[in-house]
Amino acid sequence: MYQHETRFRVRYGETDRMGYVYYGNYATYYEVGRVEALRSLGFSYRSLEDSGVLLPVSDFSVRYRKPAYYDDLLVLTTCITALAGVRLHFRYELRNEAGDLLNEAETTLVFVSKASGKPCQPPDELVAALKKFLP
Amino acid sequence: MYQHETRFRVRYGETDRMGYVYYGNYATYYEVGRVEALRSLGFSYRSLEDSGVLLPVSDFSVRYRKPAYYDDLLVLTTCITALAGVRLHFRYELRNEAGDLLNEAETTLVFVSKASGKPCQPPDELVAALKKFLP
Amino acid sequence: MYQHETRFRVRYGETDRMGYVYYGNYATYYEVGRVEALRSLGFSYRSLEDSGVLLPVSDFSVRYRKPAYYDDLLVLTTCITALAGVRLHFRYELRNEAGDLLNEAETTLVFVSKASGKPCQPPDELVAALKKFLP
Amino acid sequence: MYQHETRFRVRYGETDRMGYVYYGNYATYYEVGRVEALRSLGFSYRSLEDSGVLLPVSDFSVRYRKPAYYDDLLVLTTCITALAGVRLHFRYELRNEAGDLLNEAETTLVFVSKASGKPCQPPDELVAALKKFLP
Repeated sequence: MYQHETRFRVRYGETDRMGYVYYGNYATYYEVGRVEALRSLGFSYRSLEDSGVLLPVSDFSVRYRKPAYYDDLLVLTTCITALAGVRLHFRYELRNEAGDLLNEAETTLVFVSKASGKPCQPPDELVAALKKFLP
Repeated sequence: MYQHETRFRVRYGETDRMGYVYYGNYATYYEVGRVEALRSLGFSYRSLEDSGVLLPVSDFSVRYRKPAYYDDLLVLTTCITALAGVRLHFRYELRNEAGDLLNEAETTLVFVSKASGKPCQPPDELVAALKKFLP
Repeated sequence: MYQHETRFRVRYGETDRMGYVYYGNYATYYEVGRVEALRSLGFSYRSLEDSGVLLPVSDFSVRYRKPAYYDDLLVLTTCITALAGVRLHFRYELRNEAGDLLNEAETTLVFVSKASGKPCQPPDELVAALKKFLP
Repeated sequence: MYQHETRFRVRYGETDRMGYVYYGNYATYYEVGRVEALRSLGFSYRSLEDSGVLLPVSDFSVRYRKPAYYDDLLVLTTCITALAGVRLHFRYELRNEAGDLLNEAETTLVFVSKASGKPCQPPDELVAALKKFLP
């Protein structure tokens, strides 16, 4: 398991009329967590796409426990939990500055060839970078 | 089970650089499905909030099968599957015009008192409107 | 001048903690107005892009007068005001159901070749469709 | 004139199918610029709202020159250009890492009392903090 921490602030437009971060906007936060976790391994998601490999999300689940509010400084812990064939699994925990667990989520992403539109093997460098951490 | 169908088009800003609808934006579509399903039962979600009852999402899961693309005319089937105490359960299926199943999702929402911030009983009229359809 | 009217409801995620539609989200509404105005002329913006012509926004200005609120049924009047060389000009007025003018906006868009990244002439059919209405 | 610089990365969901940042999403960036400029003056926009003063945008204009792309590290320069009665004026310049000017924008915001819904005087501390910099 590889674990990485990212911090960012809630933006005004991410809140809704309840004053909470809109439930759909956390997906954006998790994506930031994924990208920064990969970057911390020396791996650019943009370069992956530019090389012809897409990585769309196939499964996403989230359990919301407490709301995040405007201007909160959030701490997102992103774990790369498994690389299984063409699938890459992530788990997330989002906390506020007080350390309250706000929500937990999981995503599965699939390596897809841009050219064929079909699932494909992950790039060798990514496999190499991850195999130190994953079972 | 109560079932309702809503149609809408994919907006440009909802797509991402893959050309797909961004995975986080489907949450907005499901919310439209919920609101329109309730409206078709004669029930306004805005009025619910104005009466002091919030209905935040506590659990959300989605399985993405095929992408939606810009300008696609989508058909969202929303099912109210259960009202269990302070929780209301929905299930969604999103299809494109060709009838392809794009994704399936489930959400659980919790009735919360705006005043106390605590879970609360759903309004009697909503219970009455739903009990014809739900077990 | 060609004028077209589109109606849609404010979605929950489009509001912010003030309870207003977030000021940045109106850009999405105007884009819906543009696309539907073009569609009413028999012209698909998606087909335009698929044929290799992009139409990004170069200038955008908006004057906000009154807020739109959650679940408001809005009426957007979109005017195609001019086609001047490689530039297409739109003007917008957004009203609520009570007829209150909420905001007014203008955008300029530029025809750009996807291949070269340079401004290009608009397609002949669009010029033909518009010349009945524009000076 | 008070000037402040903020840096952030383009998120995946902020791009559109052209591969550009969607034109409506820059409004979110400018809002981040405003909030961080005020914070650098020791002033919290959240506290302002919590004290009963809203600051909605009344006028917004932007000139787009070049697109921002996914994962670009952007540099936003925010200038507070004037405080004129109940109105606060900002100007923005957004650049990419190469220093290219991507777009320029201006916004006018109005101090509004949450209680009355009417324009109101800005808080004394903000006037004091700004008067060192503004004419």
